[in-house]
Amino acid sequence: MSIYIAVDLGGTHIRAASFRPKETEALSHQKIKTRSKDETIFERILGLIEDTIPENETLSAIGIAAPGPLNPRTGIILNTPNIEAWDNFPIVEKLNAHFNVPVYLGNDANLAALGEWKYGAGRGHDHLVYLTISTGVGGGVISDGRLLEGVNGLGAELGHVTVLADGPECGCGHRGHLEAFSSGTAIAKYVEEELKDKLRVSSLRLSSKRTAKTIAAAAKSGDELAISAFDRAGKYLGIGVASFLHIFNPSILIFGGGVSMSGDLLFDPFYASLKEEIFGPTYLENLKITTAALGDDAGLLGALALVEMKSKIS
Amino acid sequence: MSIYIAVDLGGTHIRAASFRPKETEALSHQKIKTRSKDETIFERILGLIEDTIPENETLSAIGIAAPGPLNPRTGIILNTPNIEAWDNFPIVEKLNAHFNVPVYLGNDANLAALGEWKYGAGRGHDHLVYLTISTGVGGGVISDGRLLEGVNGLGAELGHVTVLADGPECGCGHRGHLEAFSSGTAIAKYVEEELKDKLRVSSLRLSSKRTAKTIAAAAKSGDELAISAFDRAGKYLGIGVASFLHIFNPSILIFGGGVSMSGDLLFDPFYASLKEEIFGPTYLENLKITTAALGDDAGLLGALALVEMKSKIS
Repeated sequence: MSIYIAVDLGGTHIRAASFRPKETEALSHQKIKTRSKDETIFERILGLIEDTIPENETLSAIGIAAPGPLNPRTGIILNTPNIEAWDNFPIVEKLNAHFNVPVYLGNDANLAALGEWKYGAGRGHDHLVYLTISTGVGGGVISDGRLLEGVNGLGAELGHVTVLADGPECGCGHRGHLEAFSSGTAIAKYVEEELKDKLRVSSLRLSSKRTAKTIAAAAKSGDELAISAFDRAGKYLGIGVASFLHIFNPSILIFGGGVSMSGDLLFDPFYASLKEEIFGPTYLENLKITTAALGDDAGLLGALALVEMKSKIS
Repeated sequence: MSIYIAVDLGGTHIRAASFRPKETEALSHQKIKTRSKDETIFERILGLIEDTIPENETLSAIGIAAPGPLNPRTGIILNTPNIEAWDNFPIVEKLNAHFNVPVYLGNDANLAALGEWKYGAGRGHDHLVYLTISTGVGGGVISDGRLLEGVNGLGAELGHVTVLADGPECGCGHRGHLEAFSSGTAIAKYVEEELKDKLRVSSLRLSSKRTAKTIAAAAKSGDELAISAFDRAGKYLGIGVASFLHIFNPSILIFGGGVSMSGDLLFDPFYASLKEEIFGPTYLENLKITTAALGDDAGLLGALALVEMKSKIS
C-alpha cells in the first residue's frame, strides 16, 4: 500500500515518519542527530528516509518541514541555521531525483500552523494565527481555510514585523521587530544588558547560564529583573498580536514554542497589553487563545498535512 | 434584463450606478449629497437606488461600499463617521426588505482592493496589498486570489498596525499606529505640533489652512518643516510596508488616496526606508509598486466586484 513520509529538519534532530494517507498515527519513525557542519548530511537524510519506509510499502510522496528562509514554490532552502553547507540547496529536486515521487517543502512555522489546523488545537477554525515563541518568533496563518504563503512562499514572517521603529536589534539584523522583544533570545539579551548596570540587584548575576528558562525560574522565585524581562516580552507580544488581530481577525490564536510554556509570567502582561491595544472589542469577543496541541510533532504533522493538501492519492 | 446596483457611501457624496453583469461601464449613475446629520438619509438612499435603475431593467443584486467599522457577514454598519444617526444600522437587512434582492456590504478600502484586483491596477495579481492614504490609512488585501476579511470581516485594518509602540496618538485613540504617522491628518498634526516651538521657521506659520495638500505645496517650495513632515510620513510608511511584505509577500503593492498623490515628497523617503527595513531582497525583486487606477470610482467598482463575486446570475 502507499504511504507518505514526513520529515522535520530540526535543530537537534532530523526526524522522519511514515503515514498511510488520511491517517496521523505513524507506521514507523526514525531520527538522526543534526550536525550543522556535516557535509554528508544529505546522504544521511536519504538513508533516514529509506529506513523509515516500512517493508512492502510504496512511497507516494514526501513532505519536509524546514526552518526558513526557503522557497516552497521552487523547493530551495536558501540557507538554514541548522545545516551550514546548505546554501540555496535544491532539496525538493534532489529528493525527487532519488525517490522519484512528489516532494513538498514548507517553512516549519507555517507547517506547524497547518498541522495545528488539520490535526491539533485549530481544528474547525478557518481563520487562524499561530505564533511559535522559542529562540526566535515564527508565524503561520490560515486565512479563509488556506495557508498564507504569498507569491514566493515568504509570507507569515510574524516575528519580523516592526513593533518599535528604531528599537533593539533583532536576530535578523533589523531593528524593533517582535522577535527582538519576545523571543527567548531577546529575553536573555535584555537581562544581559540590564546586568551591565552594576547597581542592578538580581539573583541572575550569579547564574552561569542565563536563558529564557533559567530567567523564568528566577522570576518565579521573585527576582525583579527576571520578572521585568518577561513583562517586557509580554507587553510587546500584546502589541504585536493586536496588530495581527487587526490584520487577520482570526477566530483562534495558537501559541507554540518553549517560551510560551512560561505561563502567567508571559501571559499576564500579554493579556494586559492586548486589551489595551485592541482596536475594538469584537476582535476579542469570539477569539479563542490557546496553546499548541502537537508539541514536538508539530513539524512532522505539519509536513504530513502539506503532503495531504498537495496530494490526490487515496 | 437583469442589472446590478453598486453604491458608494462617501464622505461628500453617496453615489450609485447600475451595471449589466460582467460589464464595468455604468448604464446609469446618480449621486446625492452626504449630510451627516440627516435623519432621512436611508429614505434618500432608497430614492437614489430607485432613480438609478434604468427603465425596463430588473434589479438582481445590490453591493455597498461603506467606511468601517462594519460587519460584512451580518450586514450591519457598526458606526460611520459619514452618517451620525447610523449606530449598528442593519443596512443589508433594510435594503433587502425593500428591494427583495441579495444585498452585499463591504468596507470601502477592502472593496477598493477588490476593485483594483478585478478591474484596475492589480489585474492578474493574486497576492495584492492595497493601501489608501488620505485623512486616514486604510487597507485591503487579496491573498491567494481571495479578499482577506477574517472571521467577522474586520481584517486588513492596515492603518491600525503599531509601528512605534507608545508613539503618537492615532485617530482611533491608540498609539503609534501607521495612520498616526502617514495619514494626511497625521502630517498636518505633526506640523501643528512643531509650530508650537516659536523658533521653528516655516512659511506654514502664516498659512490659515494647514492640510496635507497645503503642506505638500510648501514642501515643493522648499519649506523645511513641510519637507520633514513628509519625510516622517514616508519613513514610517516604509517601516509599515516592510512588515506587510513580510506578512503577505505580495506581487503588487497599490497606493490609493489623496496623500499618495504627493509623489517623490512621500515616496523618496518611503523607498529609502523600505529598502533599509526589508528582511531580504526576494521580497522586493518581483514586487510591482504602483498607484491605484480606479480613482474616484474605486468604491463603486469595488462594490460591483463584490456583487459579481457573490452572485451567480448571468
